[in-house]
Amino acid sequence: MAPIDDQPFLQLHPDDDIVIARRSAPAGTAWIAADGQWQVVSRESIDLGHKMAIRPVEVGQPVRKYGQLIGYASTAIEPGEWVHLHNLGMGELKHNYEFSTEVPAPPEPITGRTFMGYRRPDGRAATRNYIGIVSTVNCSATSSARIARHFDESILSDYPNVDGVVALTHKGGCAMEFDGADHRQLARTLAGFAKHPNIAAYLVVGLGCETSQASYLANSQELVQIAIPGQEPDHLPLTMNIQDVGGVAKTVERGIEVLKEMLPEVNRAEREPIPVSELILATECGGSDGNSGVTANPALGIASDLLVAHGGTVILSEVPEIYGGEHLLTRRARTPEIGQKLLERIRWWEKYAKKFDATIDNNPSVGNKRGGLTTIYEKSLGAIAKAGSTALQDVYEYAEPVTSKGFVVMDTPGYDPPSVTGMVAGGANVVVFTTGRGSCFGCKPVPTIKVATNTPMYERMRDDMDLNAGRILDGASLSEVGQEIFEKIVAVASGEPTLSEAQGIGDEEFCPWSPGPIF
Amino acid sequence: MAPIDDQPFLQLHPDDDIVIARRSAPAGTAWIAADGQWQVVSRESIDLGHKMAIRPVEVGQPVRKYGQLIGYASTAIEPGEWVHLHNLGMGELKHNYEFSTEVPAPPEPITGRTFMGYRRPDGRAATRNYIGIVSTVNCSATSSARIARHFDESILSDYPNVDGVVALTHKGGCAMEFDGADHRQLARTLAGFAKHPNIAAYLVVGLGCETSQASYLANSQELVQIAIPGQEPDHLPLTMNIQDVGGVAKTVERGIEVLKEMLPEVNRAEREPIPVSELILATECGGSDGNSGVTANPALGIASDLLVAHGGTVILSEVPEIYGGEHLLTRRARTPEIGQKLLERIRWWEKYAKKFDATIDNNPSVGNKRGGLTTIYEKSLGAIAKAGSTALQDVYEYAEPVTSKGFVVMDTPGYDPPSVTGMVAGGANVVVFTTGRGSCFGCKPVPTIKVATNTPMYERMRDDMDLNAGRILDGASLSEVGQEIFEKIVAVASGEPTLSEAQGIGDEEFCPWSPGPIF
Ligand SMILES: [Ca+2]
Ligand SMILES: [Ca+2]
Ligand SMILES: [Ca+2]
Ligand SMILES: [Ca+2]
Ligand SMILES: [Ca+2]
Repeated sequence: MAPIDDQPFLQLHPDDDIVIARRSAPAGTAWIAADGQWQVVSRESIDLGHKMAIRPVEVGQPVRKYGQLIGYASTAIEPGEWVHLHNLGMGELKHNYEFSTEVPAPPEPITGRTFMGYRRPDGRAATRNYIGIVSTVNCSATSSARIARHFDESILSDYPNVDGVVALTHKGGCAMEFDGADHRQLARTLAGFAKHPNIAAYLVVGLGCETSQASYLANSQELVQIAIPGQEPDHLPLTMNIQDVGGVAKTVERGIEVLKEMLPEVNRAEREPIPVSELILATECGGSDGNSGVTANPALGIASDLLVAHGGTVILSEVPEIYGGEHLLTRRARTPEIGQKLLERIRWWEKYAKKFDATIDNNPSVGNKRGGLTTIYEKSLGAIAKAGSTALQDVYEYAEPVTSKGFVVMDTPGYDPPSVTGMVAGGANVVVFTTGRGSCFGCKPVPTIKVATNTPMYERMRDDMDLNAGRILDGASLSEVGQEIFEKIVAVASGEPTLSEAQGIGDEEFCPWSPGPIF
Repeated sequence: MAPIDDQPFLQLHPDDDIVIARRSAPAGTAWIAADGQWQVVSRESIDLGHKMAIRPVEVGQPVRKYGQLIGYASTAIEPGEWVHLHNLGMGELKHNYEFSTEVPAPPEPITGRTFMGYRRPDGRAATRNYIGIVSTVNCSATSSARIARHFDESILSDYPNVDGVVALTHKGGCAMEFDGADHRQLARTLAGFAKHPNIAAYLVVGLGCETSQASYLANSQELVQIAIPGQEPDHLPLTMNIQDVGGVAKTVERGIEVLKEMLPEVNRAEREPIPVSELILATECGGSDGNSGVTANPALGIASDLLVAHGGTVILSEVPEIYGGEHLLTRRARTPEIGQKLLERIRWWEKYAKKFDATIDNNPSVGNKRGGLTTIYEKSLGAIAKAGSTALQDVYEYAEPVTSKGFVVMDTPGYDPPSVTGMVAGGANVVVFTTGRGSCFGCKPVPTIKVATNTPMYERMRDDMDLNAGRILDGASLSEVGQEIFEKIVAVASGEPTLSEAQGIGDEEFCPWSPGPIF
């Protein structure tokens, strides 16, 4: 356990103009800078989670948190003052998108660090070694699940290098436009899993008459079957339709035979040192609470920045939760075109909400404001913080293969299962999931590290929470917890099971996103 | 096996002006009426599935198939003529909705027939005896499925009257508007299963922070827990949240304990004679082919009419497949208000499609026309035929409790899993599913009888097809196959397992319909 510091205030970033009260602090409470040379005393009482200025800010000047702009001083602010709705406003930013005006310099590269992963024939790096059953439509879900379920511990114990067999079953796949937007997105998602490096071999199982045809999937996504040395290249079938095979029982029987042939070949895979730059991290938050933006999310941001410094990739998704804070990301976009790509996704969500006469309201709620959140930028940054502070390198559509290094955005809903499904389909090989209320999410075939935002929940859900960022409220430093998350990412990528993996969670959470319509 | 008649033509209903070619018939082929007293000889060749007139029809006069209007003669039609696009049109009907202008007289009541079912404390009739785990959100799906999976054959064999434990898991439950249309519809669906007579006892399992709160579900839907004699009324919990219990492992453990207490009580249920009038039949077609409207659907229609004559209930759903033929149902509506309720659902679908710049195109395609379908009425009737020919008694929204007797419509998509889910949530206690391509659908906790439209598919998928309506093409009469379906409904309602039940299918097909939006 790291030494606990009893500072009443927490500084989230060295560039910040404010610090956050770790507990309610009466007037006269002192914050002392890390170097011990700088001290600010509160001029009024500052509630838990609220902000105190540590530098003077002139009227109209930016105020920074997470090292980033959260608004502009609406009156002059003195060190020690409470910073909230009465002296912090949104200024002109919301009417003026700026593109690539604040692109952070690349972090100092860190080289030489490796993890123990699997190197696949196509050159990509895997963190797990699974066999997948890809179900094209709900109508083949039962058959797919049965094939997977056959391979229980009694069989898999003979194949120690195989992590498991996962059936990727879902509720969609028909009653949509053939080759329409939803069909193409589903195909991209299914193919993203089939081709995922963590899936060493797979079988596509369809019904036969569905819109989401197995043949369309295989052809449009250029799927190919696992190669078995000494066998014909097309020795094993790529796809199997229940209607061709003659029903559920025959399909399950034949599917099991196919997988039995795959097992020895998949079991040949062995872990080897692979540069950490080949990790693709999916970041997610779910069941957030008032601590998320103060503890787990900025700590994950530090881990994200470390991974980018190592040459790796970090994906931020959940666009409805970025909403209203996209102004901050467009300024960090490597090029104005990348900033525009993000705005296109934001416009898509506005149009989508409008179809249903709904709105995307990411403004701080009454409860958020009571908890210390002042502006929509600050609230959005609480989510954006997960992905760190580096330049935005690219923007991807849902389940699109992620090929850039560094920090990227993928367009997904905020809802956890389709969000993670999209990022994993895009190639993420490790997931870090921050949670305040206590999500029990797991995903196959990619490990998910769950980070609690607060100690009481961490203690209550010890079976499911891998790390406790609530330590930050108890006095641990952000950088210490950020470093801990980074080390956990490397360890888990190397084979250390997460708590959700140890419990075998991840068969129910595959959830391709379909905006509709369904007829 | 019933005697095979080698008539080249098939009459679908005694009121019909046309008969259907069972095989391609050259000019000069005779159709002989069932009484042997009436004969019509074809004046030209009639292709397989196409229509031949058996009565003269004057210009502008209605032409009937399934005993119902499929269009108007656009030229005078003589007996023996081929009836298709050249002499049959849509007339004025499409611009003029008529309400309750052709309400069929109630069928001659048939009394005294019973099935062996379970009588529940609330008075409703069950056909199966299950325990359910109702998962409020995808985030509790793993825990729910694990509780159910614990109760395998080794445990259930001690409780012979219990048909099984089903986990009702799904992909939704969060990232939607609280108390909005989707949330209310999901609550109605989950509650429809919880309260379903086939579910003798249930446990609601939630995560804790989801929009689809277990407490909202229990309160808004007035859920109550199973009563155990000699115990406090609230002895067993109604709902359980993972975040309160402290994680997946503890929730699964506690859920298993709760179900263990339920099992002896649920096992007490015994079958007893119950009037067939208490059967609520869900009709569904999926993977349809050119035979659906000639064999399985009209044969199911005869079974539906028999069930209505016995005082039972028949649900037709799949509104996008009724589309364009709603004119025929508004004429059969018991009151104009009921006809208007149907039109409101039709208008909803038009608006829904328009949101996505899509259209609901149910017009006969080039292939449909080549197969003998002339008008959109005829095509829609091919689907509507499943529910028989009696008066439309009411129209229900998705998953709304069905309380009427007779033939009713429920608004669902055409997509099989959400369609059947809605009807079962509404109280259907037996499902008949017609299929041409070969669907392998099964549903828990309600049995599904699958009826093949053609003999080759029936033979190929013998493990999954309960009945073969393809016999109608081989010469069996519609009424004979309709009677066979009715008898199968009664036998299955009384406990005879369907082929999908014998195989244990139905854990993956629970699929609440959510039109969106999801954020
Ligand atoms: Ca193993
Ligand atoms: Ca692969
Ligand atoms: Ca989320
Ligand atoms: Ca019940
Ligand atoms: Ca259907």
